[in-house]
Amino acid sequence: MAKYQELVDQLKRQIQSGIWNPGDKLPSLRKQSEYTGVSLMTVLHAYQLLESQGWVVSQARSGYRVAPRVKTKHVQPPHAAVSSIENVDINEFIFEVLQASKNPQLVNFGFAYPSPDLYPHHHVTRAFSSAARNMPISNTFNNLPPGNEQLRQLIAKRYAARGVEISPDEIVITAGALEALNLSLQACASAGDWIVVESPTFYGALQSLQRLGLKVLSVRTDPVTGIDIDSLESALQTHPVKACWLMSNHQNPLGFTLTDEKKQRIVEILNRYNVALIEDDVYSELYAGSEPMTSMKMYDHTGNTMLCSSFSKSLIAGLRIGWVVAGKRALDIQKLQLMSTFATSAPIQMTLVHYLTSRNYELHLKQLRKKLAERKNKVTERLREQLPQAVNIISQKGGYFIWLELPKQLDATDIYHAVLKENVSIAPGKMFGLNDQYNHCIRLNASFELDHQRMRALDILASSIVMQINGAQTQ
Amino acid sequence: MAKYQELVDQLKRQIQSGIWNPGDKLPSLRKQSEYTGVSLMTVLHAYQLLESQGWVVSQARSGYRVAPRVKTKHVQPPHAAVSSIENVDINEFIFEVLQASKNPQLVNFGFAYPSPDLYPHHHVTRAFSSAARNMPISNTFNNLPPGNEQLRQLIAKRYAARGVEISPDEIVITAGALEALNLSLQACASAGDWIVVESPTFYGALQSLQRLGLKVLSVRTDPVTGIDIDSLESALQTHPVKACWLMSNHQNPLGFTLTDEKKQRIVEILNRYNVALIEDDVYSELYAGSEPMTSMKMYDHTGNTMLCSSFSKSLIAGLRIGWVVAGKRALDIQKLQLMSTFATSAPIQMTLVHYLTSRNYELHLKQLRKKLAERKNKVTERLREQLPQAVNIISQKGGYFIWLELPKQLDATDIYHAVLKENVSIAPGKMFGLNDQYNHCIRLNASFELDHQRMRALDILASSIVMQINGAQTQ
Repeated sequence: MAKYQELVDQLKRQIQSGIWNPGDKLPSLRKQSEYTGVSLMTVLHAYQLLESQGWVVSQARSGYRVAPRVKTKHVQPPHAAVSSIENVDINEFIFEVLQASKNPQLVNFGFAYPSPDLYPHHHVTRAFSSAARNMPISNTFNNLPPGNEQLRQLIAKRYAARGVEISPDEIVITAGALEALNLSLQACASAGDWIVVESPTFYGALQSLQRLGLKVLSVRTDPVTGIDIDSLESALQTHPVKACWLMSNHQNPLGFTLTDEKKQRIVEILNRYNVALIEDDVYSELYAGSEPMTSMKMYDHTGNTMLCSSFSKSLIAGLRIGWVVAGKRALDIQKLQLMSTFATSAPIQMTLVHYLTSRNYELHLKQLRKKLAERKNKVTERLREQLPQAVNIISQKGGYFIWLELPKQLDATDIYHAVLKENVSIAPGKMFGLNDQYNHCIRLNASFELDHQRMRALDILASSIVMQINGAQTQ
Repeated sequence: MAKYQELVDQLKRQIQSGIWNPGDKLPSLRKQSEYTGVSLMTVLHAYQLLESQGWVVSQARSGYRVAPRVKTKHVQPPHAAVSSIENVDINEFIFEVLQASKNPQLVNFGFAYPSPDLYPHHHVTRAFSSAARNMPISNTFNNLPPGNEQLRQLIAKRYAARGVEISPDEIVITAGALEALNLSLQACASAGDWIVVESPTFYGALQSLQRLGLKVLSVRTDPVTGIDIDSLESALQTHPVKACWLMSNHQNPLGFTLTDEKKQRIVEILNRYNVALIEDDVYSELYAGSEPMTSMKMYDHTGNTMLCSSFSKSLIAGLRIGWVVAGKRALDIQKLQLMSTFATSAPIQMTLVHYLTSRNYELHLKQLRKKLAERKNKVTERLREQLPQAVNIISQKGGYFIWLELPKQLDATDIYHAVLKENVSIAPGKMFGLNDQYNHCIRLNASFELDHQRMRALDILASSIVMQINGAQTQ
C-alpha cells in the first residue's frame, strides 16, 4: 500500500473511532509529517484525498478540519476502536456486585476465583503451620520490601523453568496482584496521564485508574484474537500514553490468549512509543494442555515491562500475596510500597516459602489444569444445549471464563438482577467496560463442578436469558 | 482580652510564622471581618494598631501590606509555628535508613517497633496454627472489606471496654495501620489539598502525603504538651485544610500524650472548621500505669474522625493487620480498599480472631506495659549518666520512644552515620520533619533489654554525641 494510502486509512479509522470529532483541526502538514515520519508531500497528498472523499475540509489559513458528520454514519464500526474517558466511575456497580456475592447461599458464576474445592487446602494449611512453628522471632525486617528473599528466588526459578530469565532482585512481593498492578501504575504515571486498557477489561483495572485519577484509552479487543493492533497504534499516536495495562494469557473477561507473534509485536510497538507495559498475568498457569504460556515480558529487553501475578488463581485465594517483576522500576516500586502498605504479611510470605519447598506445586498445577479443562468443557456443553443460537458462547482453551454475547438489544444487568433473586449470580458485561457497549454480555466462571445444584442454577440462568430474548422479540 | 487585641496577636503570630510574608497584602477590612466574625471597626482598629507598631504598612487604595522585614527578626520564635510545603520529598533518606536497618548485626535504637522479645510469639503461632486447621474452605468472601466480622466485633468490644462506643460496622480491617491511614487520607482529600500534621511527625505521614500529592501544613508541636493550638487555628484560618493527621497518645517521635482537655479542644476546633481528623493511635495500648488512654474519636459525635490502629505495636509486628474506625466514611474507605489492595489476608485475620478469643490479650498487655516502663526507665537513666547537660533528654510516661535534643548546631545525621559504622543505629531527627529544624534531634527506641551488647551500643552512641559536642565547641 502506498504511504499516503496508509495515512489516509489511519486517519479514517481515527475519525471513525471518534479520536477526531467533526470540526477538530487535524495536525498541520509539518506536525503530521513529524509524527508519522512520512514526507510533507505524502501528508499533503493524503489530506487532499481525504478532502476529495469528504472526510475533511480545508480552510484558508486554518489547515484541515474534520468534516461535519460526513461519512461517519454508515462506516461506523459496531463500537469505537478507541474510546477515551477522562473521568472513570465504575466503582459503585462493582461494589454492589461484590457485596451481593457475600451471600453464602449464592451459586456464584460471577466469582472471579477458581472454585475453592480446587485449592490444595490441606497442604497450604500444613505449610502455614510449619511457617508458624519456624517463624524467626525477629521476622519483621526479613520481609520488608522487596519481600522475603527465599520467596523471590523461588518465583524467579519458576519463571526460569518457563524460559523467562528474571533476577530475584527484580521481583517485589506485594499484597496480591492488585497491589502489584497499582504500584506499577503509580511507578510510571501520575494523575491526569493517559493509560491504554483492553476493551472489555478486568474491572479492577478500571477501578485502579479511577482511584489514581488516570485517564483511560479503551482499545477495541477481539474476543478471540485480542487487542486490535491498529487501534492500539492509533491510540499511541494520538495521545501521550504513559502505560498500557494488558492481559495476554486467558484474558479476563474474554478468555483469549495472544499468539506469541502478537505478544512480541505489542512489546515492539510499546517500546517504539516508549510506553510502559503493565502485564497482568494472573491466569498464565491455567493453560489447557501441556505447553506453558509465554509472557510479553520475555520479549522486552528494555526493562520497561512490569509483569504482575499472584498465587490467588493457581494455588489458593485469600492469602493476599502477589508480586511484580518490575524491570527498571523495581526500586521505585519498593519505595511506593513502603509509603502505602509498608510491607507484606511476614507469616504469609513464609507460608508460601514452606509450601513451595515442601510440596509439589507442579503436580497441583497439573491436576488443576486438567480439572479446569474438564469442568469448562462440561459447562460449555451444557450452555450450548440450553442457550439459543442467538447467544454467542465464547469458550476458549485455558482459564475458566466463558464470555456470552447476547443479542445487542438485551441488558445483561436485568438478567443479573433476575437470577440473583433465585440465588444465582453472574458477572454482567457492564462491569468490564466504561460505556454501555458490553451491557449485552456476561462473564461466567466455569471452574465449578456441575453438581445437581449448579446444574439447576445454570438452567435458571439459561431460562432467564431465553425469556429476555423472547421478551425482546415480542416487544 | 479585647477583640481587636486578639486579632492583633493572631496576625502577629501569622506574620512571625511566615504565613504572611513582607509585602503580602492582608485581607481587606471587609473580608477579615467576615473571616473572623468581628466588626469592621474592630478590624480597622487592629490594623491601625499593627501599623503603629510597624508590622504592616497602609497604602492608598491598596489596603494593608506586611511591612518589609520589620519586627520579624527579634521576635521570631526558634522555628516557624506553621510551615507550609507544597512538594514533599522525604522518601529517599527514609528508604536509606530502612535499608540499612536490615543488617542483622545491628543494635537498632532507630527501630520503630517494640523489641521482638516482647511479642507473645508462642501464643500467636498457636493461634496461627488453629486458624490454619479451622479455615473454612470458602474463606475469601468472609474476609472481603470491611473484613472479618468476628474480628471487627472483637475490636469494637475492646474499645467499648475503654469507654469508646463504636459499631463493628464502622470498622474496616486494613493491611496494617499504614494502609488505614492512607485510605483515610484518600477518603477525605485529593491531590493538591492541604493536610495539617504535627511538627515533628511520624515519617510515614510525610511519605503518604508525598505519594498522594498532598500539601503539608506542619504545625509547631511541643515535645511535652503537643500541638500548639493557636498555630493549629492559624493554619486552619489561612489555608483550606481538608484533614488533620495527629497522634494523641505517646506521639511518634516525641512521646507526649495530650491531656483529655486538649484532645477535646482539638476535636471542637476541627469540627468548627469542618476538617476531618485522622487519628493515628497505634501506641495507645502502651501506657504506663493503669489508666487506659482516651482517644480524640471519643469526643467527636459528627463521624468526622477516622481512628486508625493496629496490632503491630502491642501484639506482634509483621502480620500487616490494622483497622480504621471510619465514622461516616466507612463505606468510602471499603471502596477505596477494593480498588487498591482488594482485601486483607484471610488467614491472618482468622489468626487474630483465634488469638483474641483463646488467649489472654489483656494479660499480655499488662506485662508488656510493665516491661516497657521498666526498660524505658533504665535506658533513660543510662542516658542521663552518659550524656552531658547540653543534651535535652525527653523521656515521658508510656510508649517506648525517647527524644534527644542536642545543641542546635549539631547534625544528628552525622552521628547516625558515625555509629552505623559500629553497627549501632538511631533514627535521626531529619526523618521526622520537612525542613532542617530537627536535624539536631534523635529518636531512640527504649523497648530493648539493656544487656551487655546494648549497653555497649548505647555508650558508643553517647560517646559519639559527646565527640560531636566537643568538636562543635572547639571549632
